[in-house]
Amino acid sequence: MGEQGGKRAAKFQGPKGTRDFYPADMVRRRYIEQAWRTVSIRHGFEEIEGPTFEAADLYAVKSGEAILGELFQAFSGKSPEEVEQVRATGRAPYALRPEFTPTLARMYADRAASLPRPTKWFAIPIHYRAERPQRGRLREFLQWNADVIGDESPQADAEVIAVAVGLFTELGLSGRHITVRLSNRDLVSELLLENGVGEGNVGRALTLLDRRDRMAAEEFTRACGEIGLNAAALAERLGSIQSEMNSALAAMENGEAMPAIARRSPGIEQLKGLLAALDAQGILKWCEFDFSIVRGLAYYTGTVFEITAAGERAVAGGGRYDRLIESFGGPPTPAVGFGMGDVVLSLVLEEHGLMPEGERLAECLGTRPDAFVVSAGDESCDAAVAPLVAELRRAGLHARRSYKATKKIDKLLKDAAACWARFAVILDESWSAGRVQVKDLTDGTQHTIPRAQLAPWIAQRRAGLAV
Amino acid sequence: MGEQGGKRAAKFQGPKGTRDFYPADMVRRRYIEQAWRTVSIRHGFEEIEGPTFEAADLYAVKSGEAILGELFQAFSGKSPEEVEQVRATGRAPYALRPEFTPTLARMYADRAASLPRPTKWFAIPIHYRAERPQRGRLREFLQWNADVIGDESPQADAEVIAVAVGLFTELGLSGRHITVRLSNRDLVSELLLENGVGEGNVGRALTLLDRRDRMAAEEFTRACGEIGLNAAALAERLGSIQSEMNSALAAMENGEAMPAIARRSPGIEQLKGLLAALDAQGILKWCEFDFSIVRGLAYYTGTVFEITAAGERAVAGGGRYDRLIESFGGPPTPAVGFGMGDVVLSLVLEEHGLMPEGERLAECLGTRPDAFVVSAGDESCDAAVAPLVAELRRAGLHARRSYKATKKIDKLLKDAAACWARFAVILDESWSAGRVQVKDLTDGTQHTIPRAQLAPWIAQRRAGLAV
Repeated sequence: MGEQGGKRAAKFQGPKGTRDFYPADMVRRRYIEQAWRTVSIRHGFEEIEGPTFEAADLYAVKSGEAILGELFQAFSGKSPEEVEQVRATGRAPYALRPEFTPTLARMYADRAASLPRPTKWFAIPIHYRAERPQRGRLREFLQWNADVIGDESPQADAEVIAVAVGLFTELGLSGRHITVRLSNRDLVSELLLENGVGEGNVGRALTLLDRRDRMAAEEFTRACGEIGLNAAALAERLGSIQSEMNSALAAMENGEAMPAIARRSPGIEQLKGLLAALDAQGILKWCEFDFSIVRGLAYYTGTVFEITAAGERAVAGGGRYDRLIESFGGPPTPAVGFGMGDVVLSLVLEEHGLMPEGERLAECLGTRPDAFVVSAGDESCDAAVAPLVAELRRAGLHARRSYKATKKIDKLLKDAAACWARFAVILDESWSAGRVQVKDLTDGTQHTIPRAQLAPWIAQRRAGLAV
Repeated sequence: MGEQGGKRAAKFQGPKGTRDFYPADMVRRRYIEQAWRTVSIRHGFEEIEGPTFEAADLYAVKSGEAILGELFQAFSGKSPEEVEQVRATGRAPYALRPEFTPTLARMYADRAASLPRPTKWFAIPIHYRAERPQRGRLREFLQWNADVIGDESPQADAEVIAVAVGLFTELGLSGRHITVRLSNRDLVSELLLENGVGEGNVGRALTLLDRRDRMAAEEFTRACGEIGLNAAALAERLGSIQSEMNSALAAMENGEAMPAIARRSPGIEQLKGLLAALDAQGILKWCEFDFSIVRGLAYYTGTVFEITAAGERAVAGGGRYDRLIESFGGPPTPAVGFGMGDVVLSLVLEEHGLMPEGERLAECLGTRPDAFVVSAGDESCDAAVAPLVAELRRAGLHARRSYKATKKIDKLLKDAAACWARFAVILDESWSAGRVQVKDLTDGTQHTIPRAQLAPWIAQRRAGLAV
């Protein structure tokens, strides 16, 4: 069709930093979601979900400045009070959720008394950040979350790391592509105290270390000076402990016992417990210590980690947040979890040729048609296509049809093959005798089948049974 | 754990009209989503998705007043321009999407030249309406959409109705529970013109008819007067044609040919074509004509329908929107589709006892554990649980474990049964000899299996193969 006289209406665009998922994009998204879900369930996590927008206050205290500055805000255009509020203050009562942990903590706090310990939850929420879109960062994205709540032991830390590793394995990635970088906020805090920072400035120092890579050298030096931090001494001390811990990790990966660690401190005890727990999960070969990691979210405590792909891109990040649920009105409850976004993960899969395509992807997602019905006969055959397709669908088969007028069998079979149909069902002169021609598009064999037996014949042959 | 001294922090609530999905809620949501997806794919529809928020302008022209008054609005709190706009006008640049059709029309318009005809798309978007929450209506909900684009024939109308009917069948609902109520805006428009309404007032008259049930009688009478509508004559005429069409439908359902219809008009020709197409799909028994239906959305043309459950609750609604894609900058493109929300559908399933629970639901969703591992032995058995569970998961099995300290086998087996595990794996004194006890929780049989053979043994037995 061309334009119909006059001027064509203007096209609309989707909002900047969001995505339109056409079918070819959507199957890739579903492939990742399916892997997230399958691996979560295999590891004993149960799925939850919350609202996509929350009271803006939910993020005000605990999420940290980096997130607070990037909120999409929302309000009901129907509520005079809410409209009045945004006019008066420029701030809305709701925020599109920038992360999932506050929702999870709110939900857990609300029902803590009746929930098992540990509670293992996963979710695949949509998130929103009003930052500038760039490669690997969008304003709307999916994020897989997995959390173990109510277990303070390092086994829980190892269990959430193991489910992330399980995901990479499921997608064909290995320790050659992916590194789990482990750190511990309590250890870093101990060393901050030993290198000039007073008790009251530890939080500020952790934020400073997290931002270091995004700061000019002089700016960082000045900020260190303000809180008395001897950054050079800290780096040397952290580096030396990091080497020692990584040697211990390597020894254990080789089947040796855990070597003695020179330093004794609560942070080191946590790291030793984590090493043993990662060993029990059989995933030491994915891991290394990297004490430059402190994580930007204000609510983290103890173990923190980032998972990076070759090229240092962060694929996932997480850690302990042992005081968050309490601060949301629940009982004191230890918890650990991580988030993994779909955008960087997709890029990593594509770079390594691990995103399946075409028939293989359709096979993975169960979207291959069982039957593609075409008419190569007269009008009575044409008229029979719709009822036959409806009948196959009622029998639970995925049936498609040609909508083309052509009777050229080659063209029609090409369309069947283009959507990876298993069988082409051809209505021709044998239709008047109650029979159809079926071509098995996998092995090329052709069969004449009585109409009444078509659906069971396809179902059995698809299941690999002789018919 | 009790409260830890001092005052407990205040609990947060989710926003009014939204839902927290705990695991028991989430599996019910997934059951419905899985049915929507399975049936869509079986009927040859391909999945798409768009952003959850769009430019507010996208809804300004075509969605109709009822939706425009109920928009949640959104803006970037990071953008000084956007904050300035909401302060100055009380209106934000974005809206949380209240329906999917404008997104679909935008996406189709953007790629019309390269898309097949017909294009068959489905989606399971989240929607938002700032209306007052009540039973069956929430401010955030899921809606299944299925659309056939680029096919003006009544076969396309019948195909979208057939996929909705396929969904009900999949969920165990029948024509006893569900009625597809068919109408046609062109027919109603013809009769408006014949009963006093001038060309320029037809749109206004359709809106009036749609709102009739929500208006006081005097208000309706006055509004009819303003546009010259003889409502009584219209009702009588529509009722008489409706009876005639329903008789034709009943005759065809009994296998008779379509009877002659007294009236001849473009609207009637469309309805006759629809009858034949519904017959070809084998779904006449789900349908009846109800010309009181005109649908509230401003963009509908031709066929419109509502699907209701016993008690007259609307489960789904849809129709043709042959001019919408063009108005969004695409080529003139006929289209037809519907939306079905999750809230009313869930209520209907529950009322009829058709929402599966417990083991059956877990079976439907593939969330039953294959193995539940417990230690009934000494410390070496306790320490072996985590590595064994990790090993089973690496083999692709869904493995869980007990986190309890108890060694009481009855208690442990009860926990295994409570999550509908297929097999309990028990580490006891035979562990030191490299063997585990496996209890098949389906048939109660007990087996001693060498550790190295455990994963393949469970996988094969789960698949129903002798081992």
